[in-house]
Amino acid sequence: LNRIKASGLKLRFCTNETQATREKFVKKLQGMGFDISVTEVTAPAPAACRILKERSLRPHLLVHNALVPEFAEIDKANPNCVVIGDAAENFTYANLNEAFRVLIGMEKPVLISLGRGRYYKETDGLKLDVGAYMKALEYACDVQAEVVGKPAKMFFESALAEMGVPPQQAIMIGDDIVNDVGGAQRCGMRALQVRTGKYRPCDENHPHVKPDAYVNNLAEAVDVILQQL
Amino acid sequence: LNRIKASGLKLRFCTNETQATREKFVKKLQGMGFDISVTEVTAPAPAACRILKERSLRPHLLVHNALVPEFAEIDKANPNCVVIGDAAENFTYANLNEAFRVLIGMEKPVLISLGRGRYYKETDGLKLDVGAYMKALEYACDVQAEVVGKPAKMFFESALAEMGVPPQQAIMIGDDIVNDVGGAQRCGMRALQVRTGKYRPCDENHPHVKPDAYVNNLAEAVDVILQQL
Repeated sequence: LNRIKASGLKLRFCTNETQATREKFVKKLQGMGFDISVTEVTAPAPAACRILKERSLRPHLLVHNALVPEFAEIDKANPNCVVIGDAAENFTYANLNEAFRVLIGMEKPVLISLGRGRYYKETDGLKLDVGAYMKALEYACDVQAEVVGKPAKMFFESALAEMGVPPQQAIMIGDDIVNDVGGAQRCGMRALQVRTGKYRPCDENHPHVKPDAYVNNLAEAVDVILQQL
Repeated sequence: LNRIKASGLKLRFCTNETQATREKFVKKLQGMGFDISVTEVTAPAPAACRILKERSLRPHLLVHNALVPEFAEIDKANPNCVVIGDAAENFTYANLNEAFRVLIGMEKPVLISLGRGRYYKETDGLKLDVGAYMKALEYACDVQAEVVGKPAKMFFESALAEMGVPPQQAIMIGDDIVNDVGGAQRCGMRALQVRTGKYRPCDENHPHVKPDAYVNNLAEAVDVILQQL
């Protein structure tokens, strides 16, 4: 990151993190030694807040406790939409039924999902991600969720707008073949897949998505980008 | 029911009940005064057991505690499939993650779902049904569940086979426009919708399913059927 910043290239961190506020997320990365600030982060919750304000939507939240502060300024009385994030332990039977009842009670149900991930890995094993619970509510209420976060085109466009860079001049680095690589490419950007984190060898045979290049890690991604300047 | 039985017509109870064994289900109906025995009931769990045995499948069960006895004779060691029913309070975050991990760990995931209902009503409000959780697992594992129960064609065919009656000579009486009426009709049966229970006036404008007739209640259904003998 320091090498990218020193090169004068613009940089933005695009995360689907919805288990913590940007503040907490940034602190964690700072603690690991990364030079990063909250203003450099594009994340689903603040993007959703913009949508809620624009459309006068009052959300019923089914999100992680740690994410609730991101919605502090949003009116949540008498909800006319449901916002679902990776609620983790908050994905209880009671909470899912409650979100469902709010949604099915609307004349025209509005479901906003902070991402559409299938699952992710934690130290104690694989966990279902928000996308799975989104599908459950979509099916039960016969609605289609509006997805905020990667791989939604609008999400990448926000990040580009925040940098003031057109997609052809931007490159995405990510470990997720669909959410990072596919999403960025559909938005007109190029994308590198790093062979770390979520990466699996079978990604290289993905039926729909092919990254512009593979790199073994973030440092190698920076090498490739700086070489081509 | 007594009038149908007295008429000599064959009768079978087709239920998607997966929150209790047939024994318990039948006892409840007997307590309400119905003349019904376990051998007259076609239900998803025993139908699933037949499939499990036929295909040497050993299930990981995500079902209601009360349904577990239906699987007493099934080998559940070292599971090679997941069976999901309306697990109700057993739909915890931990149990869903566990079922997911079993499924995603298989070379070719096999998911058997005891029904595909969206939701149902209980005295304390609407609840998400098994179909919603089935969709969550389908999405997370990129598989298609095999549905056992109404409206699956195979389920109605089992009931017909158990009676020894061809579909053209059978008539379904039900309150659910899709699961009862639609399912039976796709199997070649005629179907009456009763305007009780799950029935909603908007069912009469259903885009795909139209019952052969509407009746106000079960007694009227029996009138209609006996009149046409």
